[in-house]
Amino acid sequence: MRILGIDPGIGICGFGLIEASSRAGAKALDYGAVTTEVDAPIPARLKELYDSLVQVFEETKPEVVAVEKLFFSKNITTGIVVAEARGIVLLIAEQRGVPVYEYSPNQIKMALTGYGAAGKTQIQEMVRVHLGLEKKPKPDDAADALAVAITCSFLYELGPDNDYEFSNMRRK
Amino acid sequence: MRILGIDPGIGICGFGLIEASSRAGAKALDYGAVTTEVDAPIPARLKELYDSLVQVFEETKPEVVAVEKLFFSKNITTGIVVAEARGIVLLIAEQRGVPVYEYSPNQIKMALTGYGAAGKTQIQEMVRVHLGLEKKPKPDDAADALAVAITCSFLYELGPDNDYEFSNMRRK
Repeated sequence: MRILGIDPGIGICGFGLIEASSRAGAKALDYGAVTTEVDAPIPARLKELYDSLVQVFEETKPEVVAVEKLFFSKNITTGIVVAEARGIVLLIAEQRGVPVYEYSPNQIKMALTGYGAAGKTQIQEMVRVHLGLEKKPKPDDAADALAVAITCSFLYELGPDNDYEFSNMRRK
Repeated sequence: MRILGIDPGIGICGFGLIEASSRAGAKALDYGAVTTEVDAPIPARLKELYDSLVQVFEETKPEVVAVEKLFFSKNITTGIVVAEARGIVLLIAEQRGVPVYEYSPNQIKMALTGYGAAGKTQIQEMVRVHLGLEKKPKPDDAADALAVAITCSFLYELGPDNDYEFSNMRRK
Protein backbone atom coordinates (compact mmCIF):
# COMPACT_ATOMS: atom_id res chain seq x y z
CA MET A 1 0.00 0.00 0.00
CA ARG A 2 1.31 3.45 -0.94
CA ILE A 3 1.01 5.73 2.08
CA LEU A 4 1.82 9.43 1.82
CA GLY A 5 2.68 11.00 5.17
CA ILE A 6 2.40 14.75 5.38
CA ASP A 7 3.73 17.11 8.06
CA PRO A 8 1.70 20.26 7.39
CA GLY A 9 3.31 23.67 7.69
CA ILE A 10 3.16 27.02 5.95
CA GLY A 11 6.87 27.71 5.59
CA ILE A 12 7.92 24.13 5.03
CA CYS A 13 5.66 21.13 4.56
CA GLY A 14 7.26 17.69 4.72
CA PHE A 15 6.06 14.68 2.74
CA GLY A 16 7.14 11.07 2.64
CA LEU A 17 5.81 8.22 0.52
CA ILE A 18 6.25 4.67 1.74
CA GLU A 19 5.29 1.33 0.27
CA ALA A 20 4.09 -0.82 3.15
CA SER A 21 3.11 -4.48 3.16
CA SER A 22 1.95 -6.37 6.22
CA ARG A 23 4.85 -8.86 6.09
CA ALA A 24 7.73 -7.25 4.26
CA GLY A 25 7.75 -4.04 6.29
CA ALA A 26 8.00 -0.70 4.59
CA LYS A 27 10.34 1.12 2.28
CA ALA A 28 10.66 4.80 1.43
CA LEU A 29 9.82 5.56 -2.19
CA ASP A 30 10.11 9.32 -2.05
CA TYR A 31 10.40 12.08 0.49
CA GLY A 32 11.16 15.75 0.74
CA ALA A 33 9.54 19.07 1.57
CA VAL A 34 7.83 21.89 -0.24
CA THR A 35 8.44 25.44 0.86
CA THR A 36 6.70 28.77 0.44
CA GLU A 37 8.02 32.31 0.20
CA VAL A 38 8.59 33.68 3.69
CA ASP A 39 7.74 37.27 2.80
CA ALA A 40 4.55 36.57 0.85
CA PRO A 41 1.09 37.13 2.42
CA ILE A 42 -0.57 34.05 3.91
CA PRO A 43 -3.20 33.60 1.14
CA ALA A 44 -0.41 33.59 -1.47
CA ARG A 45 1.58 31.06 0.56
CA LEU A 46 -1.47 28.82 0.97
CA LYS A 47 -1.96 28.82 -2.80
CA GLU A 48 1.75 28.08 -3.32
CA LEU A 49 1.38 25.18 -0.90
CA TYR A 50 -1.75 23.98 -2.69
CA ASP A 51 -0.08 24.03 -6.09
CA SER A 52 3.07 22.25 -4.84
CA LEU A 53 1.14 19.58 -2.95
CA VAL A 54 -1.16 18.89 -5.88
CA GLN A 55 2.04 18.09 -7.78
CA VAL A 56 3.28 15.85 -4.94
CA PHE A 57 -0.03 13.93 -5.04
CA GLU A 58 0.25 13.76 -8.83
CA GLU A 59 3.74 12.30 -8.69
CA THR A 60 3.42 10.00 -5.67
CA LYS A 61 -0.09 8.65 -6.41
CA PRO A 62 -0.87 7.68 -2.79
CA GLU A 63 -3.64 5.24 -1.85
CA VAL A 64 -3.83 6.69 1.67
CA VAL A 65 -2.74 9.97 3.25
CA ALA A 66 -1.54 10.10 6.86
CA VAL A 67 -1.46 13.37 8.80
CA GLU A 68 -0.63 14.22 12.37
CA LYS A 69 -3.47 15.50 14.54
CA LEU A 70 -3.00 19.05 15.73
CA PHE A 71 -2.84 20.05 19.36
CA PHE A 72 -1.98 23.62 20.11
CA SER A 73 0.12 23.69 23.17
CA LYS A 74 2.94 26.07 22.34
CA ASN A 75 2.30 28.89 19.93
CA ILE A 76 -1.34 29.54 19.12
CA THR A 77 -0.67 32.10 16.39
CA THR A 78 1.63 29.68 14.56
CA GLY A 79 -0.93 26.97 15.23
CA ILE A 80 -3.65 28.85 13.37
CA VAL A 81 -1.51 29.09 10.24
CA VAL A 82 -0.52 25.42 10.52
CA ALA A 83 -4.22 24.52 10.76
CA GLU A 84 -4.92 26.65 7.68
CA ALA A 85 -2.17 24.74 5.83
CA ARG A 86 -3.61 21.48 7.16
CA GLY A 87 -7.00 22.42 5.70
CA ILE A 88 -5.29 22.66 2.30
CA VAL A 89 -3.81 19.16 2.70
CA LEU A 90 -7.19 17.64 3.64
CA LEU A 91 -8.89 19.44 0.74
CA ILE A 92 -6.43 18.09 -1.83
CA ALA A 93 -6.76 14.52 -0.49
CA GLU A 94 -10.55 14.75 -0.70
CA GLN A 95 -10.47 16.34 -4.15
CA ARG A 96 -8.50 13.31 -5.36
CA GLY A 97 -10.57 10.77 -3.43
CA VAL A 98 -7.67 9.66 -1.21
CA PRO A 99 -8.74 8.70 2.34
CA VAL A 100 -7.07 10.59 5.20
CA TYR A 101 -5.88 8.88 8.38
CA GLU A 102 -5.00 10.96 11.40
CA TYR A 103 -2.73 10.16 14.32
CA SER A 104 -1.94 11.98 17.53
CA PRO A 105 1.67 12.85 18.37
CA ASN A 106 1.44 10.27 21.16
CA GLN A 107 0.33 7.54 18.74
CA ILE A 108 3.24 8.35 16.45
CA LYS A 109 5.76 8.23 19.29
CA MET A 110 4.35 4.95 20.61
CA ALA A 111 4.22 3.40 17.14
CA LEU A 112 7.81 4.31 16.30
CA THR A 113 9.57 3.88 19.63
CA GLY A 114 7.11 2.20 22.00
CA TYR A 115 7.62 5.23 24.23
CA GLY A 116 5.09 8.08 24.40
CA ALA A 117 7.59 10.68 25.56
CA ALA A 118 10.19 9.93 22.87
CA GLY A 119 12.12 12.90 21.48
CA LYS A 120 12.41 14.09 17.89
CA THR A 121 15.86 12.54 17.44
CA GLN A 122 14.70 9.11 18.63
CA ILE A 123 11.73 9.22 16.26
CA GLN A 124 13.95 10.19 13.36
CA GLU A 125 16.44 7.42 14.18
CA MET A 126 13.61 4.87 14.24
CA VAL A 127 12.34 6.17 10.89
CA ARG A 128 15.84 5.58 9.47
CA VAL A 129 16.08 2.05 10.93
CA HIS A 130 12.54 1.05 10.01
CA LEU A 131 12.95 2.11 6.40
CA GLY A 132 16.49 0.72 6.12
CA LEU A 133 18.00 4.08 5.20
CA GLU A 134 21.70 4.85 5.61
CA LYS A 135 21.15 8.31 7.01
CA LYS A 136 18.30 10.10 8.74
CA PRO A 137 15.99 11.57 6.11
CA LYS A 138 16.41 15.32 5.69
CA PRO A 139 14.88 17.82 6.22
CA ASP A 140 13.34 17.02 9.63
CA ASP A 141 9.90 17.76 8.16
CA ALA A 142 10.33 14.89 5.70
CA ALA A 143 11.39 12.57 8.54
CA ASP A 144 8.28 13.61 10.50
CA ALA A 145 6.12 12.94 7.45
CA LEU A 146 7.66 9.48 7.07
CA ALA A 147 7.04 8.85 10.79
CA VAL A 148 3.31 9.44 10.41
CA ALA A 149 3.25 7.28 7.26
CA ILE A 150 4.92 4.43 9.20
CA THR A 151 2.42 4.89 12.05
CA CYS A 152 -0.36 4.56 9.48
CA SER A 153 1.15 1.32 8.17
CA PHE A 154 0.96 -0.10 11.73
CA LEU A 155 -2.51 1.18 12.63
CA TYR A 156 -4.21 1.22 9.23
CA GLU A 157 -6.69 -1.55 10.01
CA LEU A 158 -8.17 0.57 12.82
CA GLY A 159 -9.59 2.96 10.23
CA PRO A 160 -9.30 6.72 9.74
CA ASP A 161 -11.46 7.72 12.67
CA ASN A 162 -9.40 6.02 15.33
CA ASP A 163 -9.51 7.79 18.65
CA TYR A 164 -8.03 4.97 20.67
CA GLU A 165 -5.00 5.36 22.81
CA PHE A 166 -2.09 3.37 21.43
CA SER A 167 -1.66 1.55 24.75
CA ASN A 168 -5.03 -0.11 24.16
CA MET A 169 -4.07 -1.18 20.68
CA ARG A 170 -0.92 -2.86 21.83
CA ARG A 171 -3.02 -5.26 23.86
CA LYS A 172 -4.86 -6.56 20.81
CA MET B 1 -16.42 48.61 -4.27
CA ARG B 2 -17.81 45.10 -3.93
CA ILE B 3 -16.65 43.66 -0.60
CA LEU B 4 -17.38 40.06 0.32
CA GLY B 5 -17.28 39.44 4.06
CA ILE B 6 -16.84 35.85 5.17
CA ASP B 7 -17.36 34.32 8.61
CA PRO B 8 -15.47 31.02 8.29
CA GLY B 9 -16.82 27.86 9.85
CA ILE B 10 -17.00 24.19 9.03
CA GLY B 11 -20.67 23.54 9.85
CA ILE B 12 -21.93 26.90 8.68
CA CYS B 13 -19.99 29.60 6.89
CA GLY B 14 -21.60 33.01 6.56
CA PHE B 15 -21.06 35.37 3.65
CA GLY B 16 -22.23 38.87 2.88
CA LEU B 17 -21.61 41.03 -0.17
CA ILE B 18 -21.84 44.80 0.18
CA GLU B 19 -21.39 47.60 -2.30
CA ALA B 20 -19.57 50.37 -0.48
CA SER B 21 -18.75 53.86 -1.67
CA SER B 22 -16.89 56.44 0.38
CA ARG B 23 -19.79 58.92 0.40
CA ALA B 24 -23.00 57.02 -0.14
CA GLY B 25 -22.39 54.43 2.57
CA ALA B 26 -22.96 50.77 1.90
CA LYS B 27 -25.77 48.51 0.82
CA ALA B 28 -26.17 44.75 1.07
CA LEU B 29 -26.29 43.06 -2.33
CA ASP B 30 -26.41 39.47 -1.15
CA TYR B 31 -25.92 37.46 2.00
CA GLY B 32 -26.47 34.01 3.39
CA ALA B 33 -24.58 30.97 4.59
CA VAL B 34 -23.29 27.72 3.19
CA THR B 35 -23.48 24.59 5.29
CA THR B 36 -21.81 21.19 5.29
CA GLU B 37 -23.02 17.75 6.31
CA VAL B 38 -22.60 17.35 10.08
CA ASP B 39 -21.89 13.62 9.94
CA ALA B 40 -19.35 13.70 7.12
CA PRO B 41 -15.60 13.43 7.82
CA ILE B 42 -13.71 16.73 7.98
CA PRO B 43 -11.92 16.35 4.62
CA ALA B 44 -15.28 15.80 2.89
CA ARG B 45 -16.75 18.82 4.66
CA LEU B 46 -13.79 20.99 3.67
CA LYS B 47 -14.29 20.02 0.04
CA GLU B 48 -18.02 20.72 0.32
CA LEU B 49 -17.14 24.14 1.74
CA TYR B 50 -14.62 24.72 -1.04
CA ASP B 51 -17.12 23.86 -3.77
CA SER B 52 -19.89 26.00 -2.25
CA LEU B 53 -17.64 29.00 -1.67
CA VAL B 54 -16.20 28.84 -5.18
CA GLN B 55 -19.79 29.23 -6.31
CA VAL B 56 -20.35 32.17 -3.93
CA PHE B 57 -17.24 33.88 -5.37
CA GLU B 58 -18.49 33.08 -8.88
CA GLU B 59 -21.89 34.65 -8.21
CA THR B 60 -20.86 37.63 -6.08
CA LYS B 61 -17.71 38.62 -8.02
CA PRO B 62 -16.05 40.46 -5.11
CA GLU B 63 -13.23 42.96 -5.59
CA VAL B 64 -12.07 42.46 -2.00
CA VAL B 65 -12.61 39.74 0.61
CA ALA B 66 -12.81 40.58 4.32
CA VAL B 67 -12.28 37.93 6.98
CA GLU B 68 -12.11 38.07 10.75
CA LYS B 69 -8.76 37.28 12.36
CA LEU B 70 -8.79 34.17 14.49
CA PHE B 71 -7.97 34.14 18.17
CA PHE B 72 -8.49 30.90 20.02
CA SER B 73 -9.68 31.70 23.45
CA LYS B 74 -12.54 29.30 24.01
CA ASN B 75 -12.49 25.92 22.33
CA ILE B 76 -9.15 24.97 20.80
CA THR B 77 -10.42 21.81 19.07
CA THR B 78 -13.20 23.75 17.34
CA GLY B 79 -10.66 26.46 16.63
CA ILE B 80 -8.45 24.07 14.66
CA VAL B 81 -11.32 23.11 12.35
CA VAL B 82 -12.33 26.75 11.93
CA ALA B 83 -8.73 27.56 10.97
CA GLU B 84 -8.78 24.70 8.46
CA ALA B 85 -11.97 26.17 6.96
CA ARG B 86 -10.35 29.59 6.98
CA GLY B 87 -7.44 28.18 4.98
CA ILE B 88 -9.96 27.14 2.32
CA VAL B 89 -11.40 30.69 2.18
CA LEU B 90 -7.95 32.27 1.80
CA LEU B 91 -7.00 29.73 -0.88
CA ILE B 92 -10.09 30.47 -2.98
CA ALA B 93 -9.55 34.23 -2.74
CA GLU B 94 -5.93 33.85 -3.85
CA GLN B 95 -6.86 31.43 -6.65
CA ARG B 96 -9.17 34.10 -8.03
CA GLY B 97 -6.76 36.97 -7.43
CA VAL B 98 -9.02 38.72 -4.91
CA PRO B 99 -7.10 40.52 -2.13
CA VAL B 100 -7.89 39.49 1.46
CA TYR B 101 -8.27 42.01 4.28
CA GLU B 102 -8.26 40.79 7.87
CA TYR B 103 -9.72 42.41 10.97
CA SER B 104 -9.59 41.52 14.63
CA PRO B 105 -12.82 41.02 16.59
CA ASN B 106 -11.96 44.22 18.44
CA GLN B 107 -11.60 46.19 15.21
CA ILE B 108 -14.98 44.92 14.04
CA LYS B 109 -16.69 45.88 17.29
CA MET B 110 -15.08 49.32 17.31
CA ALA B 111 -15.92 49.91 13.65
CA LEU B 112 -19.58 48.95 14.04
CA THR B 113 -20.43 50.30 17.47
CA GLY B 114 -17.47 52.43 18.59
CA TYR B 115 -17.29 50.13 21.60
CA GLY B 116 -14.70 47.32 21.84
CA ALA B 117 -16.75 45.21 24.23
CA ALA B 118 -19.97 45.30 22.22
CA GLY B 119 -22.11 42.16 22.21
CA LYS B 120 -23.28 40.09 19.23
CA THR B 121 -26.77 41.60 19.32
CA GLN B 122 -25.46 45.16 19.24
CA ILE B 123 -23.21 44.35 16.29
CA GLN B 124 -26.09 42.75 14.41
CA GLU B 125 -28.35 45.71 15.09
CA MET B 126 -25.68 48.09 13.77
CA VAL B 127 -25.29 45.92 10.66
CA ARG B 128 -29.03 46.26 10.09
CA VAL B 129 -29.01 50.04 10.60
CA HIS B 130 -25.88 50.66 8.57
CA LEU B 131 -27.18 48.71 5.59
CA GLY B 132 -30.71 50.11 5.89
CA LEU B 133 -32.31 46.68 6.29
CA GLU B 134 -35.73 46.18 7.82
CA LYS B 135 -34.71 43.18 9.89
CA LYS B 136 -31.46 41.81 11.22
CA PRO B 137 -29.87 39.63 8.56
CA LYS B 138 -30.24 35.91 9.25
CA PRO B 139 -28.56 33.57 9.99
CA ASP B 140 -26.22 35.15 12.54
CA ASP B 141 -23.26 33.93 10.48
CA ALA B 142 -24.42 36.09 7.57
CA ALA B 143 -24.77 39.10 9.89
CA ASP B 144 -21.22 38.48 11.17
CA ALA B 145 -19.96 38.27 7.59
CA LEU B 146 -21.67 41.57 6.75
CA ALA B 147 -20.10 43.11 9.88
CA VAL B 148 -16.58 42.31 8.72
CA ALA B 149 -17.42 43.59 5.22
CA ILE B 150 -18.63 46.88 6.70
CA THR B 151 -15.46 47.09 8.82
CA CYS B 152 -13.47 46.66 5.64
CA SER B 153 -15.36 49.49 3.97
CA PHE B 154 -14.29 51.78 6.85
CA LEU B 155 -10.68 50.65 7.13
CA TYR B 156 -9.92 49.66 3.54
CA GLU B 157 -7.43 52.46 2.89
CA LEU B 158 -5.17 51.11 5.66
CA GLY B 159 -4.40 48.05 3.54
CA PRO B 160 -4.71 44.32 4.14
CA ASP B 161 -1.80 44.02 6.55
CA ASN B 162 -3.15 46.41 9.11
CA ASP B 163 -2.10 45.55 12.60
CA TYR B 164 -3.10 48.84 14.13
CA GLU B 165 -5.45 49.15 17.02
CA PHE B 166 -8.66 50.82 15.98
CA SER B 167 -8.25 53.48 18.67
CA ASN B 168 -5.19 54.76 16.80
CA MET B 169 -7.04 54.88 13.52
CA ARG B 170 -9.79 56.99 14.92
CA ARG B 171 -7.28 59.70 15.60
CA LYS B 172 -6.32 60.03 11.94
